[in-house]
Amino acid sequence: MFKSLILTSAFFVSATQVVVAQDLREVALDIFKPLPSTVPSVRDNPITDAKIDLGKALFFDPRMSASGVFSCNSCHNLATGGDDNLETSIGHGWQRGPRNAPTVLNSVFNEAQFWDGRAADLAEQAKGPVQAGVEMANTPQNVLATLNSMPQYVDWFGSAFEGDSDPVTFDNFAKAIEAYEATLITPAPFDAWLNGDENAMSEQQLAGLEKFVDLGCASCHSGVNLGGTGYYPFGLIEKPGADVLPEGDKGRFAVTETADDEYVFRAAPLRNIAVTAPYFHSGKVWDLQVAVQIMAESQLGEELDNQSAAEIVAFLESLTGEIPAVTYPVLPAETKDTPRPSGDVISEG
Amino acid sequence: MFKSLILTSAFFVSATQVVVAQDLREVALDIFKPLPSTVPSVRDNPITDAKIDLGKALFFDPRMSASGVFSCNSCHNLATGGDDNLETSIGHGWQRGPRNAPTVLNSVFNEAQFWDGRAADLAEQAKGPVQAGVEMANTPQNVLATLNSMPQYVDWFGSAFEGDSDPVTFDNFAKAIEAYEATLITPAPFDAWLNGDENAMSEQQLAGLEKFVDLGCASCHSGVNLGGTGYYPFGLIEKPGADVLPEGDKGRFAVTETADDEYVFRAAPLRNIAVTAPYFHSGKVWDLQVAVQIMAESQLGEELDNQSAAEIVAFLESLTGEIPAVTYPVLPAETKDTPRPSGDVISEG
Repeated sequence: MFKSLILTSAFFVSATQVVVAQDLREVALDIFKPLPSTVPSVRDNPITDAKIDLGKALFFDPRMSASGVFSCNSCHNLATGGDDNLETSIGHGWQRGPRNAPTVLNSVFNEAQFWDGRAADLAEQAKGPVQAGVEMANTPQNVLATLNSMPQYVDWFGSAFEGDSDPVTFDNFAKAIEAYEATLITPAPFDAWLNGDENAMSEQQLAGLEKFVDLGCASCHSGVNLGGTGYYPFGLIEKPGADVLPEGDKGRFAVTETADDEYVFRAAPLRNIAVTAPYFHSGKVWDLQVAVQIMAESQLGEELDNQSAAEIVAFLESLTGEIPAVTYPVLPAETKDTPRPSGDVISEG
Repeated sequence: MFKSLILTSAFFVSATQVVVAQDLREVALDIFKPLPSTVPSVRDNPITDAKIDLGKALFFDPRMSASGVFSCNSCHNLATGGDDNLETSIGHGWQRGPRNAPTVLNSVFNEAQFWDGRAADLAEQAKGPVQAGVEMANTPQNVLATLNSMPQYVDWFGSAFEGDSDPVTFDNFAKAIEAYEATLITPAPFDAWLNGDENAMSEQQLAGLEKFVDLGCASCHSGVNLGGTGYYPFGLIEKPGADVLPEGDKGRFAVTETADDEYVFRAAPLRNIAVTAPYFHSGKVWDLQVAVQIMAESQLGEELDNQSAAEIVAFLESLTGEIPAVTYPVLPAETKDTPRPSGDVISEG
């Protein structure tokens, strides 16, 4: 991976030398991609309106957690950029999650999910936090008992998974959530500009884009999500201090158990980055300009002056998109058979 | 208060003796009132669209809590009947609130707010949970610093409180939330029936209504909200066990310090009761039919058979209304000046 990274970087350095002469949009279109105008398809999960509606209900339903306090939307809040704006999330029993919650917006375009890419897709991802002891602390069995206790949910699963002999399953729960999340895509001024609208971005934003390409940021942060597709060591050139890169979290090493993967993380997707502070897997940096300067130094060995960093921040602000209008769901009422919420913290082991 | 209660009860007992002979709707219209078709006015707080929109943003904004985890909507969730469906709410530091969270829906029609009526109106109410150590654990100062750090909020306060020299105040914060909450009214089949639609309620529901009046339930649960307007001892005839009426919570006594007010609570408003389990200030009862039977015994000395209780439950289900469509807000992004969320629990005293 290191090799391909270095090759990729070399490509961009040479490519960007001609940026000034060449059309910036042409260069950008080689590296990035505008969002599509339709909901993308996802593997093994045909998206239908019934599935989207069910997934939305599940996404917003706090009764999917053991305590009845947390829904998917608690940490991936659609009102605040699809994340929770906390250093790391607070979950069941007021426990802290280990890493900063990534935004759900446009996450369907990531190659894999979580900071370490340990889930292949959003359906697999959706099963994680529901069961994590420090997050929603629930069990598949209790999720299904909860869903089966509410006739309206049983109906909705039947419509969303027509033809399934047993529609209310944990797999279908995850697939419905994936279908809903696939709709959460946020066209931004950058897309309008990529699509040909000269006035969609300011001069400063365009200067920032040029710097972003020129410096080599785009070697990791490329594609439709400007990231979310490759794994790279945090501190490729210069390892940041433990205040930003805590030593205890070795990133993708926990997934692959390969020494090369120590402190390796999936390149963060940058759409809506300006509205999803704090930054990095540790959530330790709140100022986007500071985050840009840390990245430049640790990944590219560049000390970025404030003006250049501000231009890149301006470019990143052009990635703040418009969320599709979300009508807040009215959820099925619990019945006397619905399992009771429990805030009890069960210690593991 | 006891005296007026007894007089009122006596009135209803005599009134209900003629229910069979008289038109049930005529009797019902003497006791109850359909919801209005327009947003009600509130004291000292002219309601405007700008104020409603601001109030909605504040209502959904978790950054109004110290931790960044809880918004008004966390415990008064519009997706689940305007409450949180927990025995008592879980708040800051995973602490438990002392009483079951009442629904925000139609709460503008309550005479006073909270189970003990300690807040005169919704604006006063809104200031409570934000500051309560076991709920949102914030301070007015930190709320204002948070709001002032986001230019979009400052603009919105300017529009909502035009003419105020200093629009961003804690009072205005509360007034905006009150304005939004005043819009959360939920017309139900019972309203349609009161308004003349014969088919809006089933035979069983009408039989339940007749029992509800006949037994005397309506002596406390009357008016537009079927409750929410008077204070009554829980256990007027027979005090329920400590499993339902915990001895430590003396209700309105804490507000008035009058011996007569021991275990006195505001009569619960009954709109949407079928979707807001669990029941009573203690939240100890999950089955509405059981709750009806407990009430009949403790307040009226009546042992209610299952069929009669089921009829009353059917009537109560006709009070489940339709929530106005809520477009989930997109909140202003925090800035580097926004006070950092803190989940720390500061012990008092």
